[in-house]
Amino acid sequence: MRIAVDALGGDKAPREVVTGAVAAADRLGHDEIFLVGDKELVRPEVGASAPQNLSLRDAGGPVGMGEEAASALRARPDASVAVAAEMVRDGEAGAFFSAGNTGATVAAALLRIGRLEGCRRPAIATVLPLSSPVLLLDAGATVMCRPQDLLNFAILGGVFAQRYFDLGGGARVGLVNVGEEPGKGSNLAKEAHRLMSESPGVRFVGNVEGRDIGSGVADVLVTDGFTGNVVLKTAEGVAREILGMLHSAMTGGAISKLAAGILRPGLIGVRDRVDPENYGGSFLLGVRGPVVIGHGNSGARGVENALVGLSRTGAGLAEALEGALAGAHAAPARGDTS
Amino acid sequence: MRIAVDALGGDKAPREVVTGAVAAADRLGHDEIFLVGDKELVRPEVGASAPQNLSLRDAGGPVGMGEEAASALRARPDASVAVAAEMVRDGEAGAFFSAGNTGATVAAALLRIGRLEGCRRPAIATVLPLSSPVLLLDAGATVMCRPQDLLNFAILGGVFAQRYFDLGGGARVGLVNVGEEPGKGSNLAKEAHRLMSESPGVRFVGNVEGRDIGSGVADVLVTDGFTGNVVLKTAEGVAREILGMLHSAMTGGAISKLAAGILRPGLIGVRDRVDPENYGGSFLLGVRGPVVIGHGNSGARGVENALVGLSRTGAGLAEALEGALAGAHAAPARGDTS
Repeated sequence: MRIAVDALGGDKAPREVVTGAVAAADRLGHDEIFLVGDKELVRPEVGASAPQNLSLRDAGGPVGMGEEAASALRARPDASVAVAAEMVRDGEAGAFFSAGNTGATVAAALLRIGRLEGCRRPAIATVLPLSSPVLLLDAGATVMCRPQDLLNFAILGGVFAQRYFDLGGGARVGLVNVGEEPGKGSNLAKEAHRLMSESPGVRFVGNVEGRDIGSGVADVLVTDGFTGNVVLKTAEGVAREILGMLHSAMTGGAISKLAAGILRPGLIGVRDRVDPENYGGSFLLGVRGPVVIGHGNSGARGVENALVGLSRTGAGLAEALEGALAGAHAAPARGDTS
Repeated sequence: MRIAVDALGGDKAPREVVTGAVAAADRLGHDEIFLVGDKELVRPEVGASAPQNLSLRDAGGPVGMGEEAASALRARPDASVAVAAEMVRDGEAGAFFSAGNTGATVAAALLRIGRLEGCRRPAIATVLPLSSPVLLLDAGATVMCRPQDLLNFAILGGVFAQRYFDLGGGARVGLVNVGEEPGKGSNLAKEAHRLMSESPGVRFVGNVEGRDIGSGVADVLVTDGFTGNVVLKTAEGVAREILGMLHSAMTGGAISKLAAGILRPGLIGVRDRVDPENYGGSFLLGVRGPVVIGHGNSGARGVENALVGLSRTGAGLAEALEGALAGAHAAPARGDTS
């Protein structure tokens, strides 16, 4: 697979992005990686011994983290993220990655690559790194959703999770809600529940409450982009908080430090399991071609992991997703068959 | 203050509720506590040496956790939670507590006690036990909100948090949103942002992202009841998950166990800080009289802490909240004064 990497997107770009891309190219010998961005900024970071399957593609500068995405892309059509998207549109690359301004990545994907047939709005699908990892979507692409959007997210998320988690059967899909019973929640949640329970394209397990998101009851959790974004960031914030409190509690005196040293490997194991950099990025589902959005503060390890995940999952993804949408929408609803 | 306690509400009622109420009565010598519920069920739990300021009030049975609240209350108007609410309505008690079916508690409060003037819908205000505790509302009373509801929650939450956290200045109020900039989020969030920033009754600090909910940037976080419920349960779920993973990581071998034993006091400190039972209950704001909703699985310690918190905060609360709503709504908007 050929992957275009926005070399200038992210708080730690270009250095950490380039370092991660070089490491990924080393690991993924059969893939080609293109570093996209102003070559004056990118080339100095690459070093002399770049792998053969890594090359540069000159473009403009980044879209800043604070910029309004649509107007920035209009003003600078050669921005690195836009050129990376164009490479996918033009078949020069099969997927693209950016750890830059999320709005700009979503806008570049929508404007340059376009949506899948049958999908009004895209979703950001992200893995919550809990003891049972679960795919959450939408994590923020579409803050205001209709019930049909949530059904689409369920279909897209189910197909994607089956590939990503390498599940034997279909992925179990839950709806984030305020109670387990079908009649619970907002009008959006109630109607989405009905659509998901009637769709043959979704292995629906019903409503899932916030407290059960990491319990393994579902492989995929569907919600609107407002709720999903808040859930994702809350989970990350609480995890960081608790690990921070524990760190303080363990570094009190000499004996505590000694005991903490003994437990260090186990504790690092826990910290690493809940580390977002394990996954390194979120997939934008609903556009014609795999697009991965890295954390804004992605380090080299996060970029590397994201590109490895993309290589493993991305080939044929858009076609599989579009096929699933077409199949689900074409199938008669249960009520029609009786 | 006289407090009516629904002795039959909660997974562990009546035993744990009665035990907690007895302990609270012992601590709160100047308050009177009424245990409300079928005396055949309640009396055996009280024991011979009940404190003088604790008495029984006979009523019907509980509303079950799985029951539809409104119809249960219609069918059994003498349900313990309904009678507890009536005691507030009739001036026999100044506040009531229930750890039973949340919907039934909210419905009993709305139907028997009624709303504050100027408040269309109530909110459940709950303390998120993070390193900087923060009051979150609405945690689930009103799953579909209008912008004006969120403004009311901001006013109510600000007044309540100032009392509850004993803040010198006014409580700083933030709006849960998907980004920090004012233009971010759903239409609801955008319009609520405008109303809150224009209201003289709110010390508004702007949007707060999920990752910052425990960072101390705000004393109060306002959101709709759908998002708030999911945030609260996600935070609880993630905290429990991580503590569970740590527990497993620390109980591997003999040396790990020894080291964990040394660190035990510090770790218990962390676990206790994030334990919801510290607060023991959530306040239902927007009704004419303090109402506290305990966790469904409240143990005696949670009930005791909830009643102590209620005694400390409840006197004159409804009047203070109604006054704040009237003041905020009567005051001219900023634009009118220029």
